[in-house]
Amino acid sequence: MSLPLLDSFVAALREVVGREYVRSDASSLTTYGQDALLQPCPPDLVVFPSNTAEVSRIAALCNEQRVPLVVRGAGTGYTGGAVPTAGGVVLSMERLNRILEIDQENLLAVVEPNVITADLQRAVERVGLFYPPDPASLEQSSLGGNVAECAGGPRAFKYGTTKRYVLALEAVLANGEVVRTGSKAVKNVVGYDLTQLLVGSEGTLAIITKITLRLVPKPPDRATVAAAFATIKDAVDAVTALIERRAVPAAIELIDEESLVAAALHSGVQVAPPGAKALLIVECDGIPAAVQDELSLVVRACETAGVMSVRRASSEADRAELWAVRRQISLALRATGLLKLNHDVVVPRGRVPQLYDAVEELRQQFGLRIAAFGHAGDGNIHVNLMVDRKNPDELSRAKAAERALFERVLALEGSISGEHGIGYAKKPYIAMELSDEVLALMRRVKTAFDPNNILNPGKIFP
Amino acid sequence: MSLPLLDSFVAALREVVGREYVRSDASSLTTYGQDALLQPCPPDLVVFPSNTAEVSRIAALCNEQRVPLVVRGAGTGYTGGAVPTAGGVVLSMERLNRILEIDQENLLAVVEPNVITADLQRAVERVGLFYPPDPASLEQSSLGGNVAECAGGPRAFKYGTTKRYVLALEAVLANGEVVRTGSKAVKNVVGYDLTQLLVGSEGTLAIITKITLRLVPKPPDRATVAAAFATIKDAVDAVTALIERRAVPAAIELIDEESLVAAALHSGVQVAPPGAKALLIVECDGIPAAVQDELSLVVRACETAGVMSVRRASSEADRAELWAVRRQISLALRATGLLKLNHDVVVPRGRVPQLYDAVEELRQQFGLRIAAFGHAGDGNIHVNLMVDRKNPDELSRAKAAERALFERVLALEGSISGEHGIGYAKKPYIAMELSDEVLALMRRVKTAFDPNNILNPGKIFP
Repeated sequence: MSLPLLDSFVAALREVVGREYVRSDASSLTTYGQDALLQPCPPDLVVFPSNTAEVSRIAALCNEQRVPLVVRGAGTGYTGGAVPTAGGVVLSMERLNRILEIDQENLLAVVEPNVITADLQRAVERVGLFYPPDPASLEQSSLGGNVAECAGGPRAFKYGTTKRYVLALEAVLANGEVVRTGSKAVKNVVGYDLTQLLVGSEGTLAIITKITLRLVPKPPDRATVAAAFATIKDAVDAVTALIERRAVPAAIELIDEESLVAAALHSGVQVAPPGAKALLIVECDGIPAAVQDELSLVVRACETAGVMSVRRASSEADRAELWAVRRQISLALRATGLLKLNHDVVVPRGRVPQLYDAVEELRQQFGLRIAAFGHAGDGNIHVNLMVDRKNPDELSRAKAAERALFERVLALEGSISGEHGIGYAKKPYIAMELSDEVLALMRRVKTAFDPNNILNPGKIFP
Repeated sequence: MSLPLLDSFVAALREVVGREYVRSDASSLTTYGQDALLQPCPPDLVVFPSNTAEVSRIAALCNEQRVPLVVRGAGTGYTGGAVPTAGGVVLSMERLNRILEIDQENLLAVVEPNVITADLQRAVERVGLFYPPDPASLEQSSLGGNVAECAGGPRAFKYGTTKRYVLALEAVLANGEVVRTGSKAVKNVVGYDLTQLLVGSEGTLAIITKITLRLVPKPPDRATVAAAFATIKDAVDAVTALIERRAVPAAIELIDEESLVAAALHSGVQVAPPGAKALLIVECDGIPAAVQDELSLVVRACETAGVMSVRRASSEADRAELWAVRRQISLALRATGLLKLNHDVVVPRGRVPQLYDAVEELRQQFGLRIAAFGHAGDGNIHVNLMVDRKNPDELSRAKAAERALFERVLALEGSISGEHGIGYAKKPYIAMELSDEVLALMRRVKTAFDPNNILNPGKIFP
């Protein structure tokens, strides 16, 4: 934790944003000291700027006094990226929440960082446009957080993750300088691609204050199917068959038995028929003829793999219910009362079968319950070790299993995080994936942006 | 120019790669001292490594002796990126030219940097896969160069530029360290995205020695049409109508009269009917039904804009001829004997009409011939000032027109380079687009990678 903040420093912050927007009451410190990792760590102060100029002055003040500055969006991250582990100031971006432009002619939107992902999606869909990235938290998560963590979601299979949509950024450096990267043009090779460097940098390089996002035409049609399988292996075989047939649906999501049971209990909705041990949700989009064509590919791939039943969502409400269940799996697993150690590991897309084999081996070897669901088309599976937090032996087995999981994933030429980032939850493991030379290079890049290490200190680097 | 290289340094290089792969004969120095900018500047030595270990040892030697090290692919760049303006060593990657893997299960390829773009395309298309980036130089350009410059091409409209396909890199730092960024997984948020930072960094940050590329399924069908218009305005209107109809063909290319005339003279092929002052080439790809659907959208958009004629390529040979003419426009313009000042400016995609208005104003204001053609769907137009190199007055008018062009483009919220990079040809102009703070930040990033400034010195930064 940092030393107590100087009165003069606090007074200067109040000067910048107004007294009511500098808070240190217990409730604020609790609320703004945690994210979805649920391992809270209160800051010394929470500050709520309303514009870029204020952010710039706050950063300069923190930089002068060497006070840790942790940017916070909606706090939906899973790796503690927004948690002020070194104390200091949490900069809540919630007042920077306007959609500044939806530019139909140039197919782009300009937003402040705390616009909620789903709000932008609805706004652009009203004019026939589409913003594809759809993290499960889309009704809560902010676009600034999505950019800082490079959020994915089911549609990343066809459409790519957040990074594919970020054209330009306005950001404040640690010293208060305001920089603009990229442009409204879809191609730009003028100097280094600082835009893409900032995407996924988890608030450690700069504070994002404005985002220019590329939009695409809204697909005129879509169809969603739920395919139930008697074994997880059959479901995984269907995914392999789909990839082999070169189908590119919008999403291929896989839900295993453990997750299905928790979801049914939590939501009261039974999305899989009795006896099903795995469910695939596949969504196709595009022009009607393409959707039909792809749908039949999907059905054939499922049949090849011995599907129990394929059900097509009969209405928009039916489809919404299916996705709601999928999106609430994390919540449902939490509602079991068990500690949920969630890892968004990712393997090359054809190696999902080997990943599920590895998960099964870990279950046996460590005697653990594991729920594994997610973006099967991308090879990005959320592997959740479900642990009784009152059982120290189980906890220590889970810790060993985490490391074993990462070893398997890296042996499959994958990565320990596909969309949640490192934050502080995964930093003990980052050196399993990155060499000393690469970590040292990343630290030098960090220093180029933030020489005093005030921006989100204690994150990413071991 | 650098000081004469020490004998001991040259001997050490020979030790690394073998005597025959260190050259300083006049012919080698000429050949390897220029790119498509045609402003040669000979190096002191040309070195031809055959593997990563040799590249590492060469870099370490250059770093110790502070000798400029300029990486060279196929030399097809337009901005002098591969030209050794400070002398020193040119590192020709031509022996690193193997396709190491085409991984059909995981939809990726691993290549050495000097694989020719079209060779990879043919190899992956043979197994039903597709590598979309298609710079006009694709039969000559190397993938390493494509990555270093973030090459685009017509298909970038639908498929994005090179950066969208680079999953992982192996690269050698200035000090000889070998680093690996990214992975074979399509999602990866472990630490900073150094992969995307290296894409487009023009050989100034590291030497790329291995590239892992994402592939997509090969579209099963495609159709190509050439639409002729009586005025450039009509053709531009058709592009606007297409964007408004939310069509996403694979490519929307626009060729103006000046370019058409040069192309017809050079190739002997008349792709536009008599009287046509502008030609659009539109290619649709996907499943047959989607191609048909999109094709009718294209035809309707052209009709709305008062098209003279629409001709669909009747065979693969017919299509190939059309694209060959398009790809040879640069060559054709050069064949006029005039100096061709080529600028790949880019504007937000809906502002192509304003860009063509600006070009027309420049023609009038500066009394210059200007050929403007290119990737209209992306807002990325190659504006070529055609200048009699023996006419000093025309040359100086052209210089003034270049700056005026960039001013117009930036006023339209575009960028001075969409795919050719800065190299040294455009570095006098980079500060028009980037602020002092951003340039200083980029310099600090450069220093984080290459503290002694040996990699491609004198490029990008003014």
